Amino acid sequence: MGMPLELNTMIVTKGREKRVEENLFVLIKEGYRLYPIEIPIEVRKTIDSESSGTGVIKKVEWENSTTTITYQLISLYSPN
Amino acid sequence: MGMPLELNTMIVTKGREKRVEENLFVLIKEGYRLYPIEIPIEVRKTIDSESSGTGVIKKVEWENSTTTITYQLISLYSPN
Amino acid sequence: MGMPLELNTMIVTKGREKRVEENLFVLIKEGYRLYPIEIPIEVRKTIDSESSGTGVIKKVEWENSTTTITYQLISLYSPN
Amino acid sequence: MGMPLELNTMIVTKGREKRVEENLFVLIKEGYRLYPIEIPIEVRKTIDSESSGTGVIKKVEWENSTTTITYQLISLYSPN
Repeated sequence: MGMPLELNTMIVTKGREKRVEENLFVLIKEGYRLYPIEIPIEVRKTIDSESSGTGVIKKVEWENSTTTITYQLISLYSPN
Repeated sequence: MGMPLELNTMIVTKGREKRVEENLFVLIKEGYRLYPIEIPIEVRKTIDSESSGTGVIKKVEWENSTTTITYQLISLYSPN
Repeated sequence: MGMPLELNTMIVTKGREKRVEENLFVLIKEGYRLYPIEIPIEVRKTIDSESSGTGVIKKVEWENSTTTITYQLISLYSPN
Repeated sequence: MGMPLELNTMIVTKGREKRVEENLFVLIKEGYRLYPIEIPIEVRKTIDSESSGTGVIKKVEWENSTTTITYQLISLYSPN
């Protein structure tokens, strides 16, 4: 009877993000997920990979058991 | 640094809902609000009014400090 | 990597509540569950049963993959 | 009618943590806050300070408009 959701503290892209503008991306994830919005969070390609940058989520949509986030990549991680 | 949100357990319309289809409505609320999706919840006109029916939220969107919900009215309360 | 949780909008006791004071009860549920606190919500014995009353959660604890709620039963449903 | 809560993605101690065991700390925060539990998150002294380490929250309690977290400090940040 409850609604299952998942609290996420970072964006894990798995390489599935779609660029919609210069540094604006859309990513669709399965299930209903709770992400912080308008707060800088880490972006990674996989859970275990290094950080690939910092993003700020601008929009979150829940529908049909999927979560769609639109995020701005505000900085890229550049390893030396 | 945290993200303020509000947990809501019912839909309070304040008469601001817009009908988009026969029993499908869109309602815009201030701030980021957490609503259960795909679960029957009570619909009221104001917090203190009688229940006006039961709705099921089909879509939740967070953007620009507002929450937009799309809900289906599945039953109307009919007082005797 | 995310944290699974379940949004609950009512208290479903399954008869497992323990009375700690006159109208104060403790109930342990599996998993991490998000309940509204300090807000009147419905109390039911099972998901499909009639409402058995209204409760107000006074305390929520998450630990070891369980959620413990302490709630006050503020009214009992009395069918005619 | 909703329940205000704050989604937190890191632990900001403001130096108010109390050590209860070797690397186990208790921290009391105002209001009801949603923290990821059993997931490594950043620990900082202030929002704007450098990371002081990584912690894992083991227990979250909500009561009387406060949130009490118990966390294990699993690694300390050591700047060169």
